[in-house]
Amino acid sequence: MFKGVSTMTCLDGKFDVVIVGGGAGGYTAALTVKKLYPDISVLLVRKDSYALIPCAIPYLCATIEACNRNLLPDAPLKKAGVEILIDEVVDIDLTNKLVKTAEGREIGYGKLILATGSSPVVPRSIKGTDLEGVYTVVKSFKAMERLQDAVRKAERITIVGGGFIGVEFADDLANLKKKITIVELLPHCLMLNFDEEFAVEAEDELRAKGVDVITNARVESIVGDGKVEAVRLADGREIPSDVVIMAVGARPNSELAKKAGLKIGERGAIVVDEYMRTSNPDVLAVGDCAEKRSFFTGKPVNLMLASIACYEARVAGINLFDIRIPKPIRGVVGIFLTYINGKAFGGLTESMARREGFQVESSVVKVPNRHPGILPGARETKLKLVFSKQSGLLLGAEASGGEDVAELVNFLGLAIQNRMNAKEISILQYGTQPFLTPSPVGYPPVVAALNTVKFEQ
Amino acid sequence: MFKGVSTMTCLDGKFDVVIVGGGAGGYTAALTVKKLYPDISVLLVRKDSYALIPCAIPYLCATIEACNRNLLPDAPLKKAGVEILIDEVVDIDLTNKLVKTAEGREIGYGKLILATGSSPVVPRSIKGTDLEGVYTVVKSFKAMERLQDAVRKAERITIVGGGFIGVEFADDLANLKKKITIVELLPHCLMLNFDEEFAVEAEDELRAKGVDVITNARVESIVGDGKVEAVRLADGREIPSDVVIMAVGARPNSELAKKAGLKIGERGAIVVDEYMRTSNPDVLAVGDCAEKRSFFTGKPVNLMLASIACYEARVAGINLFDIRIPKPIRGVVGIFLTYINGKAFGGLTESMARREGFQVESSVVKVPNRHPGILPGARETKLKLVFSKQSGLLLGAEASGGEDVAELVNFLGLAIQNRMNAKEISILQYGTQPFLTPSPVGYPPVVAALNTVKFEQ
Repeated sequence: MFKGVSTMTCLDGKFDVVIVGGGAGGYTAALTVKKLYPDISVLLVRKDSYALIPCAIPYLCATIEACNRNLLPDAPLKKAGVEILIDEVVDIDLTNKLVKTAEGREIGYGKLILATGSSPVVPRSIKGTDLEGVYTVVKSFKAMERLQDAVRKAERITIVGGGFIGVEFADDLANLKKKITIVELLPHCLMLNFDEEFAVEAEDELRAKGVDVITNARVESIVGDGKVEAVRLADGREIPSDVVIMAVGARPNSELAKKAGLKIGERGAIVVDEYMRTSNPDVLAVGDCAEKRSFFTGKPVNLMLASIACYEARVAGINLFDIRIPKPIRGVVGIFLTYINGKAFGGLTESMARREGFQVESSVVKVPNRHPGILPGARETKLKLVFSKQSGLLLGAEASGGEDVAELVNFLGLAIQNRMNAKEISILQYGTQPFLTPSPVGYPPVVAALNTVKFEQ
Repeated sequence: MFKGVSTMTCLDGKFDVVIVGGGAGGYTAALTVKKLYPDISVLLVRKDSYALIPCAIPYLCATIEACNRNLLPDAPLKKAGVEILIDEVVDIDLTNKLVKTAEGREIGYGKLILATGSSPVVPRSIKGTDLEGVYTVVKSFKAMERLQDAVRKAERITIVGGGFIGVEFADDLANLKKKITIVELLPHCLMLNFDEEFAVEAEDELRAKGVDVITNARVESIVGDGKVEAVRLADGREIPSDVVIMAVGARPNSELAKKAGLKIGERGAIVVDEYMRTSNPDVLAVGDCAEKRSFFTGKPVNLMLASIACYEARVAGINLFDIRIPKPIRGVVGIFLTYINGKAFGGLTESMARREGFQVESSVVKVPNRHPGILPGARETKLKLVFSKQSGLLLGAEASGGEDVAELVNFLGLAIQNRMNAKEISILQYGTQPFLTPSPVGYPPVVAALNTVKFEQ
């Protein structure tokens, strides 16, 4: 019945669950639903024939080289019995519980999961973004192939925006021996997610790799005659550029939901409760299109991470028909990881803690990630823990160092989710091994925690 | 006043805190006490002029080469104001609260912390262990220098015992291009700490590195004329050997405590409560010499790990005079990590869970530790989670793979300490990054947890 679907079994055009979007959130929602409810029918509708692994998009041009080496594979979906339809949902009829597609299909649903993702923002304040050679980072196979082509032909590539996507693109493109420039509005790259000391360290790594990092710089316009020639900054400087990659942020794809009458939040994302249920009881939303609230304050926050999308997809899938696993915590913690010039960085919104008015106490520990530190391959782990001053609750963690930093940050994210305080963390149990971890004497989380513990005598 | 002590300030021979033993436990106890109680006097008494980092002793012969590259540095102790005395405590007078040393000193204490460690076991059932060329693994600078010398002159080295120390020695010695044989009594190396599938994988790595691994083999005797010539097995096989390293286990050094009248447990370790207090209110014990109880059963267990010693030292130091941080959990989890032929292994006593009579449900997940898996440096992460069948509580975790496995195992150790169950773990939040972690879709802990979750419909 449906073009492009090879394993379709429910021919009546109605599915127990319809998922809109095939990115990390939709994909994980589909797998989760079929794992827990193997007998129900699940349809995943997505626009593209191929779904890219979103997190690795910055690495497509140099490291990965071919887009088809970076695909979310269909095989696990098909093996689980998920039907896949390549089409675009253009309307939701909440009353009759069906979706309408660009190709004219009408598909009924029992439960609908929206995983429509996000789209790059192009600031109107910057002129010339419509010139040939200006690209945004769209999670689409064809768009990314076009960007790859352009990058290969270019000599001078300028990235506007020094957030995660911008710096990861810069790190990857620097492997191509081209002139790479990154322009950031704030005093440092990554400053929305890291404290200055870590942001500066990340910038140093970019510069060590040959990237020209320009900060405190506002892009006024992109100039050229039909095709981009340069990026012009507000202070008059011009950066000659053959290709410009705009990486200044993203906004939730919530138009479809809005048109259907679902409630949209102040930041433009679909309003959901802790179980990802929208204002309509049979419609859920997960991932970038869904509003998130901070674990720390309960306020809406602008966090768009594939790891959060997958987490939300599991929450939605598990609790789709009734609440089977009450959430032990509310809101999203926001665990960031990035990797620049072979150095790992991870963080948990410590800067946000300060901005949100927490009184904090922090401690920085620097130790080799092997013991003794002379073992081959040893690198320095720098860890900063941030605690609520009076309660001692862990609020944030930032780390830089070798690849072990990633799971170390996840370890601390878990401590936050378990509402642990400095005193509890100071007497945690952990394992160590000379080639794998810092010394048991100096294991960074417990040492940093103990550094902040004070007792009234 | 005391020979060998450069920074001694308390000349009256009485200290607020005396610590016996300068290994990981004593060292960490000293630092913890001085951090929390900077104004009190702390004396650390140890036998050796230099204290080795215990965990890295297996790597002294090939990787580290010189024992003085593997020292617990005195500088942090001195900076913290800890006095160090090189001497041996030979008697404790509990009534008068003083210790007597081999050099005839009598030193008073307010609180005494015993961190006397453990000594290798030499089974009496094996004849010939007194031959020249037979070594045990003693945490002493001079003893290890002697072993290094012997290993350098040897061509054929046989290790008796395939536990952590045995396999790590084998892994290190294999770098020397000598004939290395490891003999293990059980069906596989590391079987006390890993399930068969992981133990076999570890053995395969040893063999890939050229180590001859002989299992299911009982050593009957070590033969030679004054000097070792061969290791003879019960089945008659002989392994020609120039050096034999006995690594068949260790027993707590509790003679000093026993002689003083402190209570000793059934396994020969000093009996302590959850705050490391012995049967005498002013004497504490930490590390290998102190009895441990299982987090899972409360039964005494034979766990000797530097990471546990450091944890216990912090518990003792923090709660030395009164209980300031009540322990959120009781007993030791036992988080093992090892590294063989460049592959990391970690575990949390899953086999023990079965032996102890838990009904378990487990799931094994294998994923690349990068996403997409074609990224350079990607390796397979294999993770097995073990849950209590009815309650869903996490009981164990075993993993093998790249270096990221170590903190992944610590992450799961933290989940155990927080008494998390499969359902909670299945909706955990975590961070991912293409170069640093598995995919967010397939993050092993949550996927393995979800695999075991069942709902009654």
